[in-house]
Amino acid sequence: MKDLKDYIEKNNKIIINELFDLLKLKSISADPKYKNQVLKTAELISKILSQAGAENIEICPTPGYPIIYADKIIDKKLPTVLVYGHYDVQPPDPLNLWDSDPFDPVIKKTKLHPNGAIFARGACDDKGQLFMQLKAFEYMLKTNNLPCNVKFMIEGEEEVGSNSLEEFVFNNKSKLKADKILISDTGILSNDIPTVTIGLRGLSYVEVEVTGPNRDLHSGIYGGAVANPINILSNMISSLHDENKKIKIPGFYDDVIELSDTERKEIMKIPFDINEYKSHLDIEEIEGESGFTTLERNSVRPTLDVNGIWGGYTGEGAKTVIPSKAYAKISMRLVPNQEHKKITQIFSNYFKSIAPKSVKVNVKEHHGGMPYISPTDDKGYIAASLAIKKTFGIDPIPLRTGGSIPIVALFEKQLNIKSILLGFGLDSDAIHSPNEHFGLFNFFKGLETIPWFFKYYADLMKNK
Amino acid sequence: MKDLKDYIEKNNKIIINELFDLLKLKSISADPKYKNQVLKTAELISKILSQAGAENIEICPTPGYPIIYADKIIDKKLPTVLVYGHYDVQPPDPLNLWDSDPFDPVIKKTKLHPNGAIFARGACDDKGQLFMQLKAFEYMLKTNNLPCNVKFMIEGEEEVGSNSLEEFVFNNKSKLKADKILISDTGILSNDIPTVTIGLRGLSYVEVEVTGPNRDLHSGIYGGAVANPINILSNMISSLHDENKKIKIPGFYDDVIELSDTERKEIMKIPFDINEYKSHLDIEEIEGESGFTTLERNSVRPTLDVNGIWGGYTGEGAKTVIPSKAYAKISMRLVPNQEHKKITQIFSNYFKSIAPKSVKVNVKEHHGGMPYISPTDDKGYIAASLAIKKTFGIDPIPLRTGGSIPIVALFEKQLNIKSILLGFGLDSDAIHSPNEHFGLFNFFKGLETIPWFFKYYADLMKNK
Repeated sequence: MKDLKDYIEKNNKIIINELFDLLKLKSISADPKYKNQVLKTAELISKILSQAGAENIEICPTPGYPIIYADKIIDKKLPTVLVYGHYDVQPPDPLNLWDSDPFDPVIKKTKLHPNGAIFARGACDDKGQLFMQLKAFEYMLKTNNLPCNVKFMIEGEEEVGSNSLEEFVFNNKSKLKADKILISDTGILSNDIPTVTIGLRGLSYVEVEVTGPNRDLHSGIYGGAVANPINILSNMISSLHDENKKIKIPGFYDDVIELSDTERKEIMKIPFDINEYKSHLDIEEIEGESGFTTLERNSVRPTLDVNGIWGGYTGEGAKTVIPSKAYAKISMRLVPNQEHKKITQIFSNYFKSIAPKSVKVNVKEHHGGMPYISPTDDKGYIAASLAIKKTFGIDPIPLRTGGSIPIVALFEKQLNIKSILLGFGLDSDAIHSPNEHFGLFNFFKGLETIPWFFKYYADLMKNK
Repeated sequence: MKDLKDYIEKNNKIIINELFDLLKLKSISADPKYKNQVLKTAELISKILSQAGAENIEICPTPGYPIIYADKIIDKKLPTVLVYGHYDVQPPDPLNLWDSDPFDPVIKKTKLHPNGAIFARGACDDKGQLFMQLKAFEYMLKTNNLPCNVKFMIEGEEEVGSNSLEEFVFNNKSKLKADKILISDTGILSNDIPTVTIGLRGLSYVEVEVTGPNRDLHSGIYGGAVANPINILSNMISSLHDENKKIKIPGFYDDVIELSDTERKEIMKIPFDINEYKSHLDIEEIEGESGFTTLERNSVRPTLDVNGIWGGYTGEGAKTVIPSKAYAKISMRLVPNQEHKKITQIFSNYFKSIAPKSVKVNVKEHHGGMPYISPTDDKGYIAASLAIKKTFGIDPIPLRTGGSIPIVALFEKQLNIKSILLGFGLDSDAIHSPNEHFGLFNFFKGLETIPWFFKYYADLMKNK
């Protein structure tokens, strides 16, 4: 693969222009009004796959958004890598905090990205990283460097819980048969300290509704005499943590496997500067579960956060109302051995149990996913490690991170295949936030690393 | 005034049509995008005054919305009544809970209003009640029944805190000189049990902003490791009341004058059915400060309510975000001897003091007003009582209510004049809520009662 760097350099502009076309489509799966844009994105992905040389391309309908399947089987005796990615993106709001249009990508230099970064919703999560995979495949195929079979499964509902994926996987087990799943939807610690994600948190996401009186009331006439759903909801949220920031839901920690001293010592080795962290976020003090470090709190400990809250009058000026209803979106990040369905159930039971009789409470399950952990003696991990050593010049650190890619656990359960999380984003890329971006260095380094992963993986499998 | 009932009956349709024209204008003072509609409403009010026979009509500019002044001085030796009202209305949201367009008035029958009620934003608060005053004045003038001088002061910022009124009153003390202020912006207990409001609660209204990290964060990557402003805001709101629903702000109750046993016994005499109250609101249980009855909690006790809360993702579906900011609108109802500026200050101090170091807190004062109480041996009260006896057939009950009309305390302070609160709404009229309405019985009974108030008041002043 001597020509790899040349190939990337020569095609640099074409590749970026193609990625921009993909980023311009508003594939916001959470908001039904963008349905057409999501469907158009699926079509564009299948076109890109076709141009890259993939075969058997199908835009498979689901009850939600379609899943794209494609493959390139060069020799049935060779190992098969199944590449997973998603073409949908998070909603861009709050829009007013973006410095440029989230769906009109631009390249700008930043302190961490002196060579420029692409600013757009989905630049990193996951269109940019998925596109790296598609272009790496194209390079390998066109330059005769593809060392094994490849399958693609690209969905459009990852940001809303991958609702259609489980059934699709269940119904297509033989079609999806593979030796390894490869996913670029994670990050590295920094451009000097490459990492490979080996652990992910699970997720339970719910929406709660607290109903007081049957209509909005005048706070002068009723204030003090009837329960105010906003005050009650605040009390109830407040009752979810104790003063040590431990989650108070009975049974919440029951299935958590406590870390060994060795594991904690490994985490301590990860380079981390608390002052830089605080200054980067412009906060005076961090906050979290007592007895654990920041790196433990954001990766190997379960958490509970309110992701949204609303109720009453939220417009300009003042309105003296006691609203009939107040709402919150609440998510819990789970760690290995916690079962998301069980956690959703005990949350719901507890939340209802702490409601006073003056209100009615409804808990709606949004979506969930299981936590995941992968061993470092796996051939996929070794191949990833070698590939990174080749392109970055140093060995990666294996890392358990705090995010959730629930489908990784799903793949293991349904297909019995471990996944390799070979992503190239940075924490500072602001995925899910305004001004999401993806460094050009990271994009092209990823594009360079992926073919080496395939090579080393095929080599390792030969020697098995 | 033998012709009064005939006059009302004959002009019934014309009067209602004119009121509909007034209700169609979207005079929402809280929302800047309705500025033109608010100004058009001021013009329509001045036209109505002119047609009624008022003189010296002025649309007085202020830094906010104009205040309309008008008068009819028939004899300088006669007493003068200053009529106050407001032409602005509350925002209509949540719009989806209205059964008809809030700005396209319709008459519908209800259980409490078998003869029909006008459904529209402002039908009762305060366009409908103000219009009663204007039409009562027109009747008295056109039928030679006006027994004293009348002045009008009608503002357009009552629903947002009457910000321009204090300066206007201060600068126009001699122009506004009067013996009594008459206001129809309150209610009666029921159509069988007329009441006259003699006490009002004061108001302190603030908006709080809690800032955590400098941008929205991914809850997977940061969840559990940094303070979430929504969780923190919920904790802080929760810390505003203790388990007995007493307000925990130090000094909050310091200036409250506790009720005497006699006063509490008087309140106990007011007809009230707790089961009807609960069933009307569809709540299983009431909630409020322990040691007090519902009628005390909603009228003579100070309260604190969150009127609005928002932060994070509030759209369709799920977004796993830790927002940078969370907000709430909080109002406190105050009782006689509590000073709203002092309360706003101690709220702000306390709220900031309970914030953890992991967030920044900002408290913005929206508006406030002083509580008010008026004696029942006042000539104005006696005249109101006689007028009600005349038109309803029974004596009214003097009532302290929970709402706030801060300008009543302002008038007393600046002009040294007590106000008579002669309003005809019902609690069930849903003012400030979807489906606001005003019974036709109440509107016409008010129109009938006001001229009798003027007559009795002029008679009583003759004999002073």
